Amino acid sequence: MTQQAILVLTTGGTIDKNYFDALSEYQIVDSGIPALLQEARVALPVRVVELMRKDSLELTEADRLAVAGAAREAPETHVVVTHGTDTMTETARVLAAEVPGKTICLTGALSPARFAETDAHFNLGMAFATAQIAPPGVYIAMSGEVFDGLKVRKDRAAGKFVAI
Amino acid sequence: MTQQAILVLTTGGTIDKNYFDALSEYQIVDSGIPALLQEARVALPVRVVELMRKDSLELTEADRLAVAGAAREAPETHVVVTHGTDTMTETARVLAAEVPGKTICLTGALSPARFAETDAHFNLGMAFATAQIAPPGVYIAMSGEVFDGLKVRKDRAAGKFVAI
Amino acid sequence: MTQQAILVLTTGGTIDKNYFDALSEYQIVDSGIPALLQEARVALPVRVVELMRKDSLELTEADRLAVAGAAREAPETHVVVTHGTDTMTETARVLAAEVPGKTICLTGALSPARFAETDAHFNLGMAFATAQIAPPGVYIAMSGEVFDGLKVRKDRAAGKFVAI
Amino acid sequence: MTQQAILVLTTGGTIDKNYFDALSEYQIVDSGIPALLQEARVALPVRVVELMRKDSLELTEADRLAVAGAAREAPETHVVVTHGTDTMTETARVLAAEVPGKTICLTGALSPARFAETDAHFNLGMAFATAQIAPPGVYIAMSGEVFDGLKVRKDRAAGKFVAI
Repeated sequence: MTQQAILVLTTGGTIDKNYFDALSEYQIVDSGIPALLQEARVALPVRVVELMRKDSLELTEADRLAVAGAAREAPETHVVVTHGTDTMTETARVLAAEVPGKTICLTGALSPARFAETDAHFNLGMAFATAQIAPPGVYIAMSGEVFDGLKVRKDRAAGKFVAI
Repeated sequence: MTQQAILVLTTGGTIDKNYFDALSEYQIVDSGIPALLQEARVALPVRVVELMRKDSLELTEADRLAVAGAAREAPETHVVVTHGTDTMTETARVLAAEVPGKTICLTGALSPARFAETDAHFNLGMAFATAQIAPPGVYIAMSGEVFDGLKVRKDRAAGKFVAI
Repeated sequence: MTQQAILVLTTGGTIDKNYFDALSEYQIVDSGIPALLQEARVALPVRVVELMRKDSLELTEADRLAVAGAAREAPETHVVVTHGTDTMTETARVLAAEVPGKTICLTGALSPARFAETDAHFNLGMAFATAQIAPPGVYIAMSGEVFDGLKVRKDRAAGKFVAI
Repeated sequence: MTQQAILVLTTGGTIDKNYFDALSEYQIVDSGIPALLQEARVALPVRVVELMRKDSLELTEADRLAVAGAAREAPETHVVVTHGTDTMTETARVLAAEVPGKTICLTGALSPARFAETDAHFNLGMAFATAQIAPPGVYIAMSGEVFDGLKVRKDRAAGKFVAI
């Protein structure tokens, strides 16, 4: 628990969705993650890299490999990935296969971070703690719980992640 | 990482401060922690016990022993304690001495949870993750970092916790 | 300025939009207006009637006549109408033609009320004041300004209402 | 209702209170009113002048005369004054005596604007509408209602303003 730098890779997802009146629609925008970290008064060294701005249903295998590449090439060994919830477990599998020796925690939100009521801040806090203290491996922090990233699924109807 | 119940002991502190116009003053009120957990969509079994409503500068040694007693007697082995920040490290020392074999994480906030901008949700998320996955011991989750509860101090002027 | 009851008619629009993860889409839901009035500590007698839950681009002439009918038949002479912004001026014209002798103020929001940052509360406050103190007629309160409801248009590109 | 400039004079009060951990106390800080107006997407020309940062119980007669002087000397004829609630009616009396021919609306909040739940935005919206459309005179906009500034009192126990 000596102080250690955290890398945050953002990929889009509900956590970064905003609403645009001019379009009457909802879009993923420039990541709000740096603002969330400032609000949380994070004093650790953190580097935030915005990799893509996609709904996770639109992520391709090439996108997942790009996330894995960014995690693998980075100097940091503690990595948080913000991600849409629908295919978060698929990216977890790619990360587990492609990035050995690092502690990676994926998280996201069921309600956008820009909402007055949202799970975004809590989830990001879980991911920060997990990336710092868990043994190397891939984890998913959602629904108040830290899961093994290879043993979890999203129960879409129930609106939560559950262990498998 | 099988699903495990979390015990949350609340003791007061800035995280639970509210403002009362009728008194023109700021007071600690009934804990907002259950509302925060609902907003965070926590699906784990959680039991919240409101132990006291005190500014941490007012906590006595007897209070700290009461917190330790509640943690020790509880059936849960994973414990989160919400606490004022000024004497959080003193309570950590009492917990480390009095409660063997459990994973306990203290947290709080520099800005009240009722504020639009606050570190409360993020910190509570860190504490939940730490209580679940860290080895038995006492931890403090503040300023974006998970600290050994016996090797940390609050730097009041800088407004953050730092390792010692 | 004796105390007078206010009627609030809700029709949907961005002000009442929410995001549903299970659908990965944004929908208009049960009106949040009563919660907003409680948060604003409104002590006047208020009656809220949810007339419809529509994006204003979907409102038909029959819908507008229904809003006018509800305003006309009501015992209250001071009326607030929450409404999507895209066709707010069209409903204003129908209200001006169909509801004589009442003070009616339409308002809405460019950012949903459920967002942490939103114009919803401010706009609703403007509409409440206007409905109470303006002479009989139809008004639109948006962009920080109270407009004659027949002499205003939405400048969609600029994201604001402007007098014409 | 041609577009007209609004002058906002800030004097402090609960609406601008913040909490400082380093002091473990609550203080009035640099006014958050400009941020509120931006969030409300106010497009009218507005000039905000921070006159003082006081709890309204600390305001002296000289302070009230300074507020009146600032309102009287300003080029704008539509004035909003943000103010603590406890002596808001006293300042209203001074303004009514000292500033003829302008429309002035005082407002404030029972809950600080920095809170997640607050009446600040709604009240400021009421004041903006009142300053624009009411005849010259002094008004107080609180508790969802626009009052004659000389015929209202704060019912502290009930937590609301009532007509007298």
